[in-house]
Amino acid sequence: MTSQMATEIAVQPDTIAATLEALLPQRPALRRLAAGRPHLLLVARGTSDNAAVYGRYLLEVHSGLGASLAAPSLATHYGVHRDLSDTTVVSLSQSGGTEEIVQTQAWAAACGAHTVAVTNVAASPLAREADLPLILEAGEELAVPATKSYTAQLAAIAVIADALGPPTRSLEPTLGRVPAAVARLLADRDGVDDAIALLGSTEHTLVSGRGIAFGTALEVALKLEETCLEPVRGLSYADLRHGPIAVVDAAAATILVSAADGPMVSGMTELADDVTALGARTIGIGGDARFAASCEVPVAGPDLPETLAPLGLVVPAQLIVEGLARSRGLDPDAPRGLSKVTQTDSSSPA
Amino acid sequence: MTSQMATEIAVQPDTIAATLEALLPQRPALRRLAAGRPHLLLVARGTSDNAAVYGRYLLEVHSGLGASLAAPSLATHYGVHRDLSDTTVVSLSQSGGTEEIVQTQAWAAACGAHTVAVTNVAASPLAREADLPLILEAGEELAVPATKSYTAQLAAIAVIADALGPPTRSLEPTLGRVPAAVARLLADRDGVDDAIALLGSTEHTLVSGRGIAFGTALEVALKLEETCLEPVRGLSYADLRHGPIAVVDAAAATILVSAADGPMVSGMTELADDVTALGARTIGIGGDARFAASCEVPVAGPDLPETLAPLGLVVPAQLIVEGLARSRGLDPDAPRGLSKVTQTDSSSPA
Repeated sequence: MTSQMATEIAVQPDTIAATLEALLPQRPALRRLAAGRPHLLLVARGTSDNAAVYGRYLLEVHSGLGASLAAPSLATHYGVHRDLSDTTVVSLSQSGGTEEIVQTQAWAAACGAHTVAVTNVAASPLAREADLPLILEAGEELAVPATKSYTAQLAAIAVIADALGPPTRSLEPTLGRVPAAVARLLADRDGVDDAIALLGSTEHTLVSGRGIAFGTALEVALKLEETCLEPVRGLSYADLRHGPIAVVDAAAATILVSAADGPMVSGMTELADDVTALGARTIGIGGDARFAASCEVPVAGPDLPETLAPLGLVVPAQLIVEGLARSRGLDPDAPRGLSKVTQTDSSSPA
Repeated sequence: MTSQMATEIAVQPDTIAATLEALLPQRPALRRLAAGRPHLLLVARGTSDNAAVYGRYLLEVHSGLGASLAAPSLATHYGVHRDLSDTTVVSLSQSGGTEEIVQTQAWAAACGAHTVAVTNVAASPLAREADLPLILEAGEELAVPATKSYTAQLAAIAVIADALGPPTRSLEPTLGRVPAAVARLLADRDGVDDAIALLGSTEHTLVSGRGIAFGTALEVALKLEETCLEPVRGLSYADLRHGPIAVVDAAAATILVSAADGPMVSGMTELADDVTALGARTIGIGGDARFAASCEVPVAGPDLPETLAPLGLVVPAQLIVEGLARSRGLDPDAPRGLSKVTQTDSSSPA
């Protein structure tokens, strides 16, 4: 039987294409809204926060803005008042109904921010209350682990980065190649079954990436953990080197995520060599030929440049997570202890 | 035999007092340097990054600035050029010699930032090249796990927050109480040995905190992991609820860190109840009486308000880490695979 999660993974070439078609025309409105505001603040939790990490890097690297991640508790618990008249706030929530995110968006507006909401639900409070709602075309998502709504969020972030970036280096032509690149990964499943087998035989798992692909590493770790019910850590390249590398040993599986080009692939290849020397087993998603050769199980990544690689890099990992859950007799659609819309504070309305 | 780490833990009342005495007179210079700059960017890695997380919250909550954590790779690998003329950059490094941090400080200055360096080594490149060096009075630190330099960094951050915060709510009187509060925790060791015993009998460990105490949770996790050589995760309250709580079970020890007052202690108490209901064993550091009653092993925290509680909250955790390492036959002073000064990129000069 096919899981709902598998069905939602498979439809991503279409949902990404539909989201791009819907949102690319919003670029002039995005430019007007962000005009004269050099700072961008991203507000999100959980999977959406991993999309925000991609946004943080892409918006700085491609668009030259100062982009950072909000700590919602500053708004919801500490009642901080800051001047946000130099800031555009982008909130991300699949459901648009996470109370903490809705509250933080309202706080930002009251502090003088312009607000953009990225959500899959047009009728949600987050969309209704934003200056500019960007509605994803992911369709209703039924499996608890987010997949197609996550890649649609990444597409929305790429549209924002393109809107606010230099017109001479538009991302639009490359964005047009994303659906086909994702379709090819889904058809080929190159390395996916070997990775599932490896993860079935190791005790603990680390996932690492760097820069533009760091958010992907965090998302792969979160999906593995919530779906396969084992502790998995997502760490940046630097955080791994500054301490946790001390616990890498023969019991560890290390999943490394890298784009095929850009300034990070050589360091990620060195990291693959280093954790291999410590006895860990390595799965490498994406990267170039040298990176793949340094990993025990290479898994093919997308034929996309680093700026947009995250839209494809997560896809083989989604296939690995879904297959690993089923191989363990778990239901990938409804992991224990989680519901589709998480409220951070139990006292929030449902 | 007493470990070097234990000696360095014990001296913290003196090193905090000496650091405050040295740095409080720098407040007028800090105010001049940050005048007209509403943004503050913190640059750090490893333990120093956990101090920066405290800074991020304290500077927003107490000083009303927009504070965020830098991603150094934007400077060192992506060559981003941003306008930082509205920003003061605070770099933290015990040694002042981590090449990546030195490079990022130079990048920030070239982008128009004013720069403050917080370091334990006055002759370091980081201190020499900063607009305003803030030299810690922690003394030479010999054990690889940072303890006294970490609390000295927290003291420096509190001085910066006080300098840039409202004169009507000065932190100075409460800062004066910190050395005695820390001395009392060291003398009492209340709950420390019970916590060591509990951690000796569980399979995996999570550490969580929220808001101003979140950085402490990250630091406790890092110290446990690098010193006791087992995977330990530090997660914010919110990140734990958005996924990883699915893997909390009877094999897990959960260490919760909370101030005794402020808006977070009630939620942390609920979290203690929730993870207990999932079968996990809980160690609670700090908090109020209700929080302590909700944790299996309560460990006394400092008699300090939330804004400055992190300067004391980490101290019983340092004692726990040192004792747990020795109980496992490990050398707390020289964990496997780590050196005192970590260079993020292996190609950097030593």
